[in-house]
Amino acid sequence: MRVIDTLAEMQQQADQWRREGLRIGFVPTMGYFHEGHLALMRHARTLADKTVISIFVNPTQFGPNEDFEAYPRDMDRDLELARGVGVDVVFAPTVDQMYPPGFQTYVQVEEVTRPLCGRSRPGHFRGVATVVAKLFQVVKPHVAVFGQKDYQQLLTIRRMVEDLAMDVQVVGHPIVREADGLAMSSRNTYLSEEDRRDALLLSRSLEEARRLVSKGERNGEVILGAVRRILASGPRVRIDYAELRDAETLEPVQHLEGPTLLALAAHVGRARLIDNTVLEP
Amino acid sequence: MRVIDTLAEMQQQADQWRREGLRIGFVPTMGYFHEGHLALMRHARTLADKTVISIFVNPTQFGPNEDFEAYPRDMDRDLELARGVGVDVVFAPTVDQMYPPGFQTYVQVEEVTRPLCGRSRPGHFRGVATVVAKLFQVVKPHVAVFGQKDYQQLLTIRRMVEDLAMDVQVVGHPIVREADGLAMSSRNTYLSEEDRRDALLLSRSLEEARRLVSKGERNGEVILGAVRRILASGPRVRIDYAELRDAETLEPVQHLEGPTLLALAAHVGRARLIDNTVLEP
Repeated sequence: MRVIDTLAEMQQQADQWRREGLRIGFVPTMGYFHEGHLALMRHARTLADKTVISIFVNPTQFGPNEDFEAYPRDMDRDLELARGVGVDVVFAPTVDQMYPPGFQTYVQVEEVTRPLCGRSRPGHFRGVATVVAKLFQVVKPHVAVFGQKDYQQLLTIRRMVEDLAMDVQVVGHPIVREADGLAMSSRNTYLSEEDRRDALLLSRSLEEARRLVSKGERNGEVILGAVRRILASGPRVRIDYAELRDAETLEPVQHLEGPTLLALAAHVGRARLIDNTVLEP
Repeated sequence: MRVIDTLAEMQQQADQWRREGLRIGFVPTMGYFHEGHLALMRHARTLADKTVISIFVNPTQFGPNEDFEAYPRDMDRDLELARGVGVDVVFAPTVDQMYPPGFQTYVQVEEVTRPLCGRSRPGHFRGVATVVAKLFQVVKPHVAVFGQKDYQQLLTIRRMVEDLAMDVQVVGHPIVREADGLAMSSRNTYLSEEDRRDALLLSRSLEEARRLVSKGERNGEVILGAVRRILASGPRVRIDYAELRDAETLEPVQHLEGPTLLALAAHVGRARLIDNTVLEP
């Protein structure tokens, strides 16, 4: 496994593979790996000849009062885990490589970045789209794999790739959960034992919504009412949003007809957690 | 010479050339060719094995009260001229191909797009950066040639390419002028005979500025005063801006020390013309 920390070397490696006719799979990450990351890497390996992952805690997707500094990092452990999965290249650029002095170019995806986390975290998706656009120029992947836990991020990347005709296949991977249902997240490390019990209410409320829909419920208010009641039963849970939206356009949904995203964000202790499911009426 | 009108075919052609180890040169244009365009194409041919030009009047770089509809077009003549220069592919997508329903992704370069034409034409450079970013994803050039008449556009593209690590070499080409000094432009076709006489004052004022600097003048106000006097001598000239700016950052310049852009925009008759020179004190 090769570790590359400059853009030029990464582009050279990608060019060489492409000249040899090899297919490049890519998983961009912010590191501090859990089973969710490793599942994306394993999936990328099945789709490509060479697998590149990036580890880069991207400052432009954090707000001024968010956890950029505190975000957990453990490069040695990450490299060990990536090696174990059979990754070919870990691309780990510095902030200065990615954002040199004078940097002033941003990629903005509009409609799909406005609601949900876009409203709670202004500028977040501009940072995400910009860094992924840049990583794509450097890693030159044929296929890139993103987790569906960050559903709005996945939609944003899909739109960017389609709108700018980036020649990359974007693949979503189902949410990977702990045995008890908690969606895996590097930010779960922020949870105390008591926080963690309450954090389970997110996935539990999604289950309840799926149960209601499977029993024929189509009224959005009824479904969200049940979700909010479950979340409110946890004293450590502070809801940021709980919304139903069209699974492709993210337009609000009152009455379920097609595939509908149920998206949650909540502060639990000092962590801000997100989770979601696509309801199929 | 092949004419391609879909993104997918263009990407396939580019991929094939790249697999064969061929170097792709690219000149993006809005068509209605003059000698300036042809000079860019000839230059691109010297830098690459295969030369692609695009012809696309890009709606997103025109303001609501600008000349998108009126912009001159003559595809048959353009194809003839491109063939004469030895272009390999003319890529001429439709507006629907470039901006399909639901399109919502834009590339924004910040500081260098704020002054000059960025102030007169809000959104213009966002449209330029977006369409060029997309064309680069489709044509996959190794090198792209832009005219220096659109100096701020060239700087914007350079910044975008550097900031997003696009693997494209951006080459500027000197302004091509008519025998009498008028910078070539597709919009010169808007000029009446009387307009055209006054339009000459743009290049003439640039000459005067160069003469002053060569004689040792370094005071920006003195230089701009002379420029404005010359422009004001044309009754059909309405100055949009005449400014001195750092040739790389576009920061305002009062006293000339390094390479300094003297940039002009003026309405002459119903045409809005631009011209510039880099003063080297």
